[in-house]
Amino acid sequence: MAKELKELTSRNENYSQWYNDLVIKADLAENSAVRGCMVIKPYGYAIWEKMQAELDRMFKETGHVNAYFPLFIPKSFLSKEADHVEGFAKECAVVTHYRLKNSKDGSGLVVDPEAKLEEELVVRPTSETIIWNTYKNWIQSYRDLPILINQWANVVRWEMRTRLFLRTAEFLWQEGHTAHATAEEAMEESIKMMHVYADFAENFMAMPVVKGVKTASERFAGALETFCIEALMQDGKALQAGTSHFLGQNFAKAFDVTFLDKSNQLDYVWASSWGVSTRLMGALIMTHSDDNGLVLPPQLAPYQVVIVPIYRNNEQLAAITEKVNAVIKKLKALGISVKYDDNDSKKPGWKFAEYELKGVPVRLAMGGRDLENATIEVARRDTLTKETVSVEGIENHVAALLEEIQQNIYQKALDFQQASTRKVDSYDEFKVEIEKGGFLLCHWDGTPETEEKIKEDTKATIRCIPIEGDKTPGVCMVTGKPSAQRVVIARAY
Amino acid sequence: MAKELKELTSRNENYSQWYNDLVIKADLAENSAVRGCMVIKPYGYAIWEKMQAELDRMFKETGHVNAYFPLFIPKSFLSKEADHVEGFAKECAVVTHYRLKNSKDGSGLVVDPEAKLEEELVVRPTSETIIWNTYKNWIQSYRDLPILINQWANVVRWEMRTRLFLRTAEFLWQEGHTAHATAEEAMEESIKMMHVYADFAENFMAMPVVKGVKTASERFAGALETFCIEALMQDGKALQAGTSHFLGQNFAKAFDVTFLDKSNQLDYVWASSWGVSTRLMGALIMTHSDDNGLVLPPQLAPYQVVIVPIYRNNEQLAAITEKVNAVIKKLKALGISVKYDDNDSKKPGWKFAEYELKGVPVRLAMGGRDLENATIEVARRDTLTKETVSVEGIENHVAALLEEIQQNIYQKALDFQQASTRKVDSYDEFKVEIEKGGFLLCHWDGTPETEEKIKEDTKATIRCIPIEGDKTPGVCMVTGKPSAQRVVIARAY
Repeated sequence: MAKELKELTSRNENYSQWYNDLVIKADLAENSAVRGCMVIKPYGYAIWEKMQAELDRMFKETGHVNAYFPLFIPKSFLSKEADHVEGFAKECAVVTHYRLKNSKDGSGLVVDPEAKLEEELVVRPTSETIIWNTYKNWIQSYRDLPILINQWANVVRWEMRTRLFLRTAEFLWQEGHTAHATAEEAMEESIKMMHVYADFAENFMAMPVVKGVKTASERFAGALETFCIEALMQDGKALQAGTSHFLGQNFAKAFDVTFLDKSNQLDYVWASSWGVSTRLMGALIMTHSDDNGLVLPPQLAPYQVVIVPIYRNNEQLAAITEKVNAVIKKLKALGISVKYDDNDSKKPGWKFAEYELKGVPVRLAMGGRDLENATIEVARRDTLTKETVSVEGIENHVAALLEEIQQNIYQKALDFQQASTRKVDSYDEFKVEIEKGGFLLCHWDGTPETEEKIKEDTKATIRCIPIEGDKTPGVCMVTGKPSAQRVVIARAY
Repeated sequence: MAKELKELTSRNENYSQWYNDLVIKADLAENSAVRGCMVIKPYGYAIWEKMQAELDRMFKETGHVNAYFPLFIPKSFLSKEADHVEGFAKECAVVTHYRLKNSKDGSGLVVDPEAKLEEELVVRPTSETIIWNTYKNWIQSYRDLPILINQWANVVRWEMRTRLFLRTAEFLWQEGHTAHATAEEAMEESIKMMHVYADFAENFMAMPVVKGVKTASERFAGALETFCIEALMQDGKALQAGTSHFLGQNFAKAFDVTFLDKSNQLDYVWASSWGVSTRLMGALIMTHSDDNGLVLPPQLAPYQVVIVPIYRNNEQLAAITEKVNAVIKKLKALGISVKYDDNDSKKPGWKFAEYELKGVPVRLAMGGRDLENATIEVARRDTLTKETVSVEGIENHVAALLEEIQQNIYQKALDFQQASTRKVDSYDEFKVEIEKGGFLLCHWDGTPETEEKIKEDTKATIRCIPIEGDKTPGVCMVTGKPSAQRVVIARAY
């Protein structure tokens, strides 16, 4: 069984298959009976809950409150913002009826034609339209602003090619929708939330990101500016991990949301929206995990420590359990989550493989010799190294180790990202380098035509115009025209 | 403005209107542009989040884990359990297409007929079918049992007559779905969750409930037994606040979910399911609130204390703020949530009315004289009484007061419930008494015919067969036939 558990395809052999194997075998998620919709299993959902808790705290610390808006959006709402409808109409689940009935020929349930909706409803692909239609009634004057609302919700985008967590027809996410009296304030909010996402990615997911601005063609449908965080996966492909949009007055105009400003002038309201989704689960997996299974950052692990007893008989188990219970108490007092696996139907070796697969950051094991010597074995998931230490003070040792693991996997991912980020100056060189993966820093003339050419030639896209780092101007690698600064180009998920 | 804020219809005048006014004016929720779907506003959502947090903790303490299953259910799944389809098919939102397109005549967005689904998808009204179809693959032997999963989700039931929180087309809820090796264990789980719900209702919502069993005709569609908690609203109508179902092997049989038991025999798996929803918000409002607005139990109030400064000038405000900040720090150290409202654009009187309307349990006010005397005014929302006390030790005074308020509103609701619960022995008397509202304890012969007659004659239903209290047999008030025990009859939401 231990062997079977570990039978992951290796990353070198087939990265994509490794990912799929891992999601299934580590019990994170699986495909459901409904095309493109996943079941998030308890272990996967526990990681998502940890993500939610931290993000929710960060949103509240930055002044946001939660609310809930309808799942359904009247079809006509989608049409009100021209770019928005263009972006989403082609992948909408449409509710047309509100009743089923038994067919007359006894063949089963059929849609009741008499229960046809006057206007079709779309299952929300994102909520700008329904929310701005609501804000219209909430906003009269500058005193009603800002509105800083976040929503935790499910959304549906009818994707044709789906992959667990990375691209699913239904996914879970949060969407912030804010309303402001000035363009500056809405822009400030958009940028602030990009930084909040980067903070979360780096300090909780241990995933380094590049912060930047999207090109016009990669913007959210309806945005004037899209800020993003881009992460680099182990296979050298980029993954957009979060976006924050400055929407200008587009949705206010579409839904006629005006306010009286301080000088009693009527103006349209300014907007931002921002979101991250269960896609982050895919990013987390592909940033750290290895051929033995998941590697989880201690900050997001459902349990940070697992303890496995190694015993010959019940008497010995009882003695070990007594010692272990004291350790658990001390760990919990330090806020460390711990699972004691004394399940008698599995062998220690099976358990070791299982928790390695599931990415538990620290594994403790106590056996007969440890009892005699007052020691305990400590194994860390990130380096797969083991040591035997004194039980006395183990809680502080583990606490320090968890911090070290969090730091270590971040550093490892950062080293990889930096080693995979290269400046490329000629298009010929680019075509060679892009095959090796990574972030390529290139000069681009700023035109959609050149961007499109790069995409057609190489399947690579401009991930972002980075807002930090080298801003030296240069010449476009494709056209030789002037370039304001290097942009990040990569193939992406 | 203060006056306008308080312009609630009084409960005596029109209870139903009072409820609607209150939900809107206290900023809890509002109707959306989508028929029957509500917007839960930040203040209402903050209460729901508090409910979620406590329930989630209680579920986890009783061994449950969270997971997530698809929003959509294939139409054919619904048909697999005969009673279930009967119960839900008539109120299903049905997705028939997965794309919109621009109409050829330029009139706007239309459903793309080429994007018709092979099999229609129903937006989940509840998830037994999709979950049991999933469990089929998770369960082979008794070692895979029990499965104790909860899901926080939105569900849709196409109700024709909707009311904010009480009955909406889309609502938020949690649904537990458990799988067991024996009937006894599944039954035990069903009963346990009824007790968890009762515990939550009484200790957090401060809402007394009667625990009981539903009659066959009031059971969940597909259940063998439905346990419930029933609460009594101030207008004398009952409200079903939570249900827990023993599903037997119905769904296991419908989805062919079998397991090998310890003696290596193949058997169908046993099931329970249980849920509470945003309907609890309606129950909370109607249990405690008064003609001045919401009354919230301290355990669920978004902030338990509000502090209002009363000042003549900025200098005085600064002096008050300094004192108040020290108070806030001490309150927070005791885990008490507090809001300091020093908004200069509103008068104290406006703020007093506003927080009364919003049901903040304790209001503190500090003015010039308080500064001189080192005092602070303490007002409690439940009794609308005020006292001036020393600032020294105010945090302990408030902590004790919050406990007292929690206890007091529970006791008040319990007194009302007990005073409204009457034994009735003749059907003539019943027809008179039912007009007065309340829980009527009556003998019933146990037949659906008598139950139906009572409903037709009086619009009252058997809320439950209580599992605690008097179990003396008697004779049915309608037919004179033998009755095993009194049941609770009431008109209900």
